[in-house]
Amino acid sequence: MANAKGYAAQSADSKLAPMDFDRREPRPDDVSIEIDYCGVCHTDIHFAQNDWGVSQFPVVPGHEIIGRVTAVGPEVKDFKVGDTVGVGCMVDSCRTCSSCNAGLEQYCAEGMTGTYNGVDRHDGSITYGGYSDKVVVSDRFVVKVPEKLDPAAAAPILCAGITTYSPLRHFGVKAGHKVGVIGMGGLGHMGVKFAKALGAEVTIFTRSESKVAEAKKQGADHVIISTDPEQMKAATETFDFMLDTIPVQHDLNPYLNCLNVDGTHIIVGLLEPIEDPALQAGALVFKRRVLAGSLIGGMPETQEVLDFCAEHDISCDIEMLDIKNINEAYERMKKGDVKYRFVIDMNTLKNG
Amino acid sequence: MANAKGYAAQSADSKLAPMDFDRREPRPDDVSIEIDYCGVCHTDIHFAQNDWGVSQFPVVPGHEIIGRVTAVGPEVKDFKVGDTVGVGCMVDSCRTCSSCNAGLEQYCAEGMTGTYNGVDRHDGSITYGGYSDKVVVSDRFVVKVPEKLDPAAAAPILCAGITTYSPLRHFGVKAGHKVGVIGMGGLGHMGVKFAKALGAEVTIFTRSESKVAEAKKQGADHVIISTDPEQMKAATETFDFMLDTIPVQHDLNPYLNCLNVDGTHIIVGLLEPIEDPALQAGALVFKRRVLAGSLIGGMPETQEVLDFCAEHDISCDIEMLDIKNINEAYERMKKGDVKYRFVIDMNTLKNG
Repeated sequence: MANAKGYAAQSADSKLAPMDFDRREPRPDDVSIEIDYCGVCHTDIHFAQNDWGVSQFPVVPGHEIIGRVTAVGPEVKDFKVGDTVGVGCMVDSCRTCSSCNAGLEQYCAEGMTGTYNGVDRHDGSITYGGYSDKVVVSDRFVVKVPEKLDPAAAAPILCAGITTYSPLRHFGVKAGHKVGVIGMGGLGHMGVKFAKALGAEVTIFTRSESKVAEAKKQGADHVIISTDPEQMKAATETFDFMLDTIPVQHDLNPYLNCLNVDGTHIIVGLLEPIEDPALQAGALVFKRRVLAGSLIGGMPETQEVLDFCAEHDISCDIEMLDIKNINEAYERMKKGDVKYRFVIDMNTLKNG
Repeated sequence: MANAKGYAAQSADSKLAPMDFDRREPRPDDVSIEIDYCGVCHTDIHFAQNDWGVSQFPVVPGHEIIGRVTAVGPEVKDFKVGDTVGVGCMVDSCRTCSSCNAGLEQYCAEGMTGTYNGVDRHDGSITYGGYSDKVVVSDRFVVKVPEKLDPAAAAPILCAGITTYSPLRHFGVKAGHKVGVIGMGGLGHMGVKFAKALGAEVTIFTRSESKVAEAKKQGADHVIISTDPEQMKAATETFDFMLDTIPVQHDLNPYLNCLNVDGTHIIVGLLEPIEDPALQAGALVFKRRVLAGSLIGGMPETQEVLDFCAEHDISCDIEMLDIKNINEAYERMKKGDVKYRFVIDMNTLKNG
């Protein structure tokens, strides 16, 4: 008899549906977690649909997991039964390379083990994610959720949050900087909150006039309609940073031109080639601009962002979801119809 | 009667030929210079041929100028008659913007005034460069040539030198770093010398096996044949920096993949769009790599690189040129047939 239940895609064409499966017997360094909430990331859809051609079915998505500790292995020192904890995009890495030693497990030389659709480094099994009632994770990849945070609204911090927080910190955003945030979805709206909390003057770039009021509500100091040539021209060479959260191909050049000398354009969403239109090398050379990428964040920084959120009273704007409506939620996400992150209330699975 | 003579292109199709013209009457902050040597940069060819569509004819090229001071205006304090001095790519800028105030005149918000084909900010005339017997330049844009340097071999430091020195310094190359230098022309061979002097382990990337011995002679610790897939694969994720001196479109992705986590690819030559093949955004995101551009260097750093060369006994490898052979030299440069920079001996103009 299986010891766990969840929602899984059985193939690229099938909808998510209930599935029973086994979570592993805890190892000495494992933390056993009963899941209360799981955020829904666009990446979940890509894996469920096999958009990237790497999915191993069945896929149990979910890498924004919040829950409570139900058991710990004998080697676990930092967690105890009853603790509210989180698990993000990774559940393992080689732990010996220079990146792992630097707490940058997401850049592990051997590749990190994803929370779902990853290959377990011990037994070769495929990992199952957080659309589930429980999960067993090595303590290094578990973080503590500060009491001050609403656990449901904290879930998306584990992916959308750390993805935007990490590059803002790494590339040195601070008070006095002018930061543009491109796109206002799950990532973008968190980026605005972090940049503001770091003391920056924040401008949201959006294609639609209809989003201006909402952008201001999110705390943006200014809004630029990126489809308005006059507004874009007026912004030429006025920004220190661009946080680019758009996940599909788009023209980077107009945004590069909005950066001042030594400005940095940070890509966190785009994984497709930058090809149409072509990136202008001159836009980098003539102003010593920098184009950089960044991927989630390491485990120490994932703990840091949760603590930062508690300190600065930051949480994700969420819409709670009954897991039985997950397929409908995916359809709404494809249309951008969510402010700003669905979070599954896992009681709807347990009691469903 | 004209007070100066030089070599000029009268149109995009014409060869360079002697031309008499007037240098301006010195202003209070001007330094009058008798030119001894002028390096020949590939940019000179682009302007003489109007490759970029911005040339204003006649074009007197030349922005790697070494000479002796013959007069100074009353406001000039740092130079005196007889000093050996240099003039690089700029002769003026707005002097009031944040870049100018930071000594980064090359990134002047109003645009720097080029040493040739620039528009004089006082009288609107077109500037004429260093293929000439004399030049008059505002003191801020004149640098001192240390006695220890061979003045002829110092000329290319003013463009090829500062162009490679500046980004190595700005992006923090130091002892222990592994630096790849892509291309082994005027810029590349200077990049190798600087990276070595800064303590880095230096690898030259070249397409041709025939250049290996020469690359080692230039001081490279290693050579990688970039057309050999095995060698490129072996270099995956092993470099901290790439100094990319290739001036024409090329595939950046194989070099990005040679960078380790947090590695930086610096473009100093490429001014064309990066389009074929497309830049892989994932190559940046998955290893937090950085793609950066850099343009020559500011005036304080141009002085610094000359002093650095004197201290570290660095000079450019040059072939001395009679100005009457400039057109033939251009043809040889188009074929890459010079090690590594032509420098015009201006006595051949004065006595020609």
